[in-house]
Amino acid sequence: MATTIIILAAGQGTRMRSALPKVLHPLGGRPLLSHVIDTARSLRPDRLAVVHGHGGDQVRERLADAPVTWVEQREQRGTGHAVAQALPVAGPDDRVLILYGDVPLVGAANLQALLDGLDHHALAVQSMILPDPTGYGRIIRDDQGRPLRIVEQKDADASEQAVNEVNTGFMAARRAALTGWLDQLSPDNAQGELYLTDCIGLAVAEGAPVTVIPATDADGFMGINDRVQLAAMERLYQRRQAEALMRAGVTVMDPARLDIRGTVTAARDVTLDVNVILEGHVVLGEGAHIGPHCVLTHAHVGPGAVIRAHSVIEDARIGPGCTIGPFARLRPGTELDDGVHVGNFVEIKKSRVGQGSKINHLSYVGDTRVGRQVNIGAGTITCNYDGVNKHQTVIGDHAFIGSNTALVAPVTIGEGATIGAGSTINQPAPPGQLTLTRAPQETRPDWQRPVKKR
Amino acid sequence: MATTIIILAAGQGTRMRSALPKVLHPLGGRPLLSHVIDTARSLRPDRLAVVHGHGGDQVRERLADAPVTWVEQREQRGTGHAVAQALPVAGPDDRVLILYGDVPLVGAANLQALLDGLDHHALAVQSMILPDPTGYGRIIRDDQGRPLRIVEQKDADASEQAVNEVNTGFMAARRAALTGWLDQLSPDNAQGELYLTDCIGLAVAEGAPVTVIPATDADGFMGINDRVQLAAMERLYQRRQAEALMRAGVTVMDPARLDIRGTVTAARDVTLDVNVILEGHVVLGEGAHIGPHCVLTHAHVGPGAVIRAHSVIEDARIGPGCTIGPFARLRPGTELDDGVHVGNFVEIKKSRVGQGSKINHLSYVGDTRVGRQVNIGAGTITCNYDGVNKHQTVIGDHAFIGSNTALVAPVTIGEGATIGAGSTINQPAPPGQLTLTRAPQETRPDWQRPVKKR
Amino acid sequence: MATTIIILAAGQGTRMRSALPKVLHPLGGRPLLSHVIDTARSLRPDRLAVVHGHGGDQVRERLADAPVTWVEQREQRGTGHAVAQALPVAGPDDRVLILYGDVPLVGAANLQALLDGLDHHALAVQSMILPDPTGYGRIIRDDQGRPLRIVEQKDADASEQAVNEVNTGFMAARRAALTGWLDQLSPDNAQGELYLTDCIGLAVAEGAPVTVIPATDADGFMGINDRVQLAAMERLYQRRQAEALMRAGVTVMDPARLDIRGTVTAARDVTLDVNVILEGHVVLGEGAHIGPHCVLTHAHVGPGAVIRAHSVIEDARIGPGCTIGPFARLRPGTELDDGVHVGNFVEIKKSRVGQGSKINHLSYVGDTRVGRQVNIGAGTITCNYDGVNKHQTVIGDHAFIGSNTALVAPVTIGEGATIGAGSTINQPAPPGQLTLTRAPQETRPDWQRPVKKR
Repeated sequence: MATTIIILAAGQGTRMRSALPKVLHPLGGRPLLSHVIDTARSLRPDRLAVVHGHGGDQVRERLADAPVTWVEQREQRGTGHAVAQALPVAGPDDRVLILYGDVPLVGAANLQALLDGLDHHALAVQSMILPDPTGYGRIIRDDQGRPLRIVEQKDADASEQAVNEVNTGFMAARRAALTGWLDQLSPDNAQGELYLTDCIGLAVAEGAPVTVIPATDADGFMGINDRVQLAAMERLYQRRQAEALMRAGVTVMDPARLDIRGTVTAARDVTLDVNVILEGHVVLGEGAHIGPHCVLTHAHVGPGAVIRAHSVIEDARIGPGCTIGPFARLRPGTELDDGVHVGNFVEIKKSRVGQGSKINHLSYVGDTRVGRQVNIGAGTITCNYDGVNKHQTVIGDHAFIGSNTALVAPVTIGEGATIGAGSTINQPAPPGQLTLTRAPQETRPDWQRPVKKR
Repeated sequence: MATTIIILAAGQGTRMRSALPKVLHPLGGRPLLSHVIDTARSLRPDRLAVVHGHGGDQVRERLADAPVTWVEQREQRGTGHAVAQALPVAGPDDRVLILYGDVPLVGAANLQALLDGLDHHALAVQSMILPDPTGYGRIIRDDQGRPLRIVEQKDADASEQAVNEVNTGFMAARRAALTGWLDQLSPDNAQGELYLTDCIGLAVAEGAPVTVIPATDADGFMGINDRVQLAAMERLYQRRQAEALMRAGVTVMDPARLDIRGTVTAARDVTLDVNVILEGHVVLGEGAHIGPHCVLTHAHVGPGAVIRAHSVIEDARIGPGCTIGPFARLRPGTELDDGVHVGNFVEIKKSRVGQGSKINHLSYVGDTRVGRQVNIGAGTITCNYDGVNKHQTVIGDHAFIGSNTALVAPVTIGEGATIGAGSTINQPAPPGQLTLTRAPQETRPDWQRPVKKR
Repeated sequence: MATTIIILAAGQGTRMRSALPKVLHPLGGRPLLSHVIDTARSLRPDRLAVVHGHGGDQVRERLADAPVTWVEQREQRGTGHAVAQALPVAGPDDRVLILYGDVPLVGAANLQALLDGLDHHALAVQSMILPDPTGYGRIIRDDQGRPLRIVEQKDADASEQAVNEVNTGFMAARRAALTGWLDQLSPDNAQGELYLTDCIGLAVAEGAPVTVIPATDADGFMGINDRVQLAAMERLYQRRQAEALMRAGVTVMDPARLDIRGTVTAARDVTLDVNVILEGHVVLGEGAHIGPHCVLTHAHVGPGAVIRAHSVIEDARIGPGCTIGPFARLRPGTELDDGVHVGNFVEIKKSRVGQGSKINHLSYVGDTRVGRQVNIGAGTITCNYDGVNKHQTVIGDHAFIGSNTALVAPVTIGEGATIGAGSTINQPAPPGQLTLTRAPQETRPDWQRPVKKR
């Protein structure tokens, strides 16, 4: 049987109180809906449809690259109506699996079990076991364990209320049967909507073979209706990410204080200290140590490199054995070779720094090619911007840049050159020699210190 | 009936191990007692008295602005004695409600219910339901649910120990009745003190109409005796603050890592990343994004502004669409117009920066008026202090300040002026022209690099 | 009776997925094994042996200073075999207590109770009470409460499974008896190993007097097999550290966000804000306030000193009443006298700063002796390094260093001297006078701003 997956993503999400459609709110740094699409794709469906409604243009634009068929639900007439809009996408004999754009962490294995349930049933429903089932529709089974019906909270008697197996809203059905049930749905309820869940009762009523499969992971089937639930789901997601890293050999100093908003590839014996945030694609080499309160975005950190506290790194490549920070800021286009030292209050962007070079204090290095074994003194500024254009600075191997120096680009510092402290260099500095600008030191004996006014 | 509220705040708080009186320890950035006073005032009492004792001078001084009648309890003779000291404040027919300075988060609705209970009873007592009531006085009711008595832990038999409704110590009584019970209190107990709680037994014994009303919120009725409990209460308080913000449309990346120590007014779709601290009065415009590890104190952040990681902002106004940080420090008196960029390792104080201007790297701008569309290069320092006086710097629209420049105030940079890199400017720089100080660049071919000593 | 303690530390720790032996993984900043050794030493044993195996050289090297007898277990033949290797260390009549290198937080009082149990028994076994005992060997007692046997999970019937007292693996025995039981151990089990735990069954079988003593603290008896458990144990450890500090009179803003990786001596009314990390030996004077996101390593902070947000301090002494940060970096060898101010983006190393001096903005001060009441302007750099040697800077009392100044060491600034802004000083500056370097300010009227290329 071919498979169609329909993702319902049309809900308004009023309780989010947001200009952003609910399914675009981020979880682990990317939209809720994007998680659901990824899970759906992992099941390798033949067809994948997303039903959008409120804010549909924003949704389609944000996820323009997703290989899905977009279906618009113009009127909000309920989940049953939404599925009916998308059903024409499915092939006539397809298995149809319904997912929800606001339930981002469902386990694929559970969903596969639902699909497999259709081998012998017309309808497969996912249940979950909750310690406190209050508010959920209970799964009532006969004494052979066969599902009889779903009883909503308000209709449940005492023995039914004691049942802790509840409906998740997730189901798979054969298309033909599903079409029939959807046709029978009635808006005769409080919201005046067509409820997909009512298909279960219709299936049972007509004696169709129905299976109800408990999820192995109730956490993942929790939906998101407001930002409180979103925050709780974010923590669940982050805890899972942290545990996966720890099981792979990463030391996480506090799993409750790690945020991964992208994909992390970490070798063995990496350490992530407290409050690290990893965004985008981050690669961490063996034994790399990321200090507390660091933020890394699209970063590649070589083996044995140490990033000290409070460093912020974006789109940068850090070579093996480098020492960075604390308070370092590496901006896009930074490439550090082996064993480079970058110290506190240093900003680097669009620059390559050669092996063993040091930029340890209070410097700005931009649009620069720094050679090997260069020492850049405290307070060095590359003046790369003239107000309209950016210019390059080139610093040769073994150069020594004295402190508090301005290098006015375009400019070249020769190999082994020394620049005197406090200089402003705008002409080439020859190799191996001392170059500087320096006004003579003078003392003014008659000068009086200012006195306090008023 | 008129209402008098008496707040007991005389306890020594020995277990806090502090030179600060217990009721002055901060919760959410302000004293415990201040929370209780605010809750009391929300009930609009006719009279409000605070009984102080240990450290009373500190308490009165710290809360000098509070509209309360201060009553001193010279000797620590128990809660009953404390109430008796304050009772003269009440009118003869008043309802009297007793609150505690070390129970800061009681819900006002519960307290109102206590007061309302006096419409038909002489005494209204607040109870709470605890999963584990061990240690608390149990509320024993008859089979109609009417309160019979309170049994202390040590006196409770097995069936009484199983009762999980316990006494909170909060009560309201009509003044006349209360005076009678207080007169009957006896110090015949382990501490040799007069216990307010004993009034309940006296009331029941004399057949007075007593009602016991369970609190809807047991958490809030927990008292603070040591810093462990204080820390737990702080987390409860912060969780409530975070939830209120989330329900109002703010994304909180981790509610367990948000600290609000003041009042926050946040528009829709604000994002607060992890470990943000908001102190004093903070206003956040729609879509404002506060990055991780930022501290904002008395700040106004315009719509769409982005504060990047590790920024510290105090008494500053940030215009719409500004981009700040990472590692920015905005000090008191900073005012940024629309679309200003402030980058890393930049400190600004007592300065206004015009629309679209940029101060992106390693600069100190103080006592300065920066025009529109100004570019201030890396390493720019306004020398605003001569050792005794502060002086003003004025920078005209469209000026370009080259990197590593010192502007020695008082000084004016003209509109559209350009300042050459590495300059020290202490005379007015005319508009539209290049001004600089620059010693000639020289190279000393005979110079030898120093050699390692020893 | 003399006492021998044997610590088993030979396990491979495969599930840690690490090049580091399991017992060397850090908890609270030092190796797991080091915690166990300290606990063992607190019991004042006559002999203390550690059995190592995998990575033994690393273990011995890392803990070379530990006063223990190292015993190598060449083959991994089980816990019983490991104990047998170390038993020759014990005296013939010794009490022998077995500890585990991967169970770091056992309470010494519990262990002492085990040893005391040997006064009247041949074997004393530690049990613990678990809410969910699944997976653990249950302690089965007779109706007088005497231990009968330990039943493993797989062998337990329903009533045995309901027992929630389980075996911890910790035991003490008289050496002679222990030798006899170890001799009888058989590798006839799934792993083919000799299990120490089997001694209990042997002892019971031969009618030896056995006592089973429940631990007062089950948390501490949890072992560490992977990094998920290590992280959980780290949090338990940190929570205990935080609680101990709070009970001693320290305000901890969030006990879940405090990391202590060493020893802290804190006076009364110290405040530790969120995300503080304390490493090595840290001493905090009365009323000291450590702001959020600070990292202190081997630091001494005087009474009333305030460390503001995002400061990183290592091997430094901060005098009473100092104000540091935010964004300050104090490196090794920094000594600040009373009332010193260090502001944002300031780095200090190997320097002493006299009373009341101020280094408030964007400066690097290294290898410097700063006098009293000195004001060091923004952007001041001490040029202490010539590429091979470090040199000293000396700044006299009451000196005023103008902003954006480079002090080229070795250099001396006289008492009360003033240095003009933007200077580069490499000759002595006389006391009480103004010294500077300054090229004349010039304006180039014909100069044209660059135009955008392309």
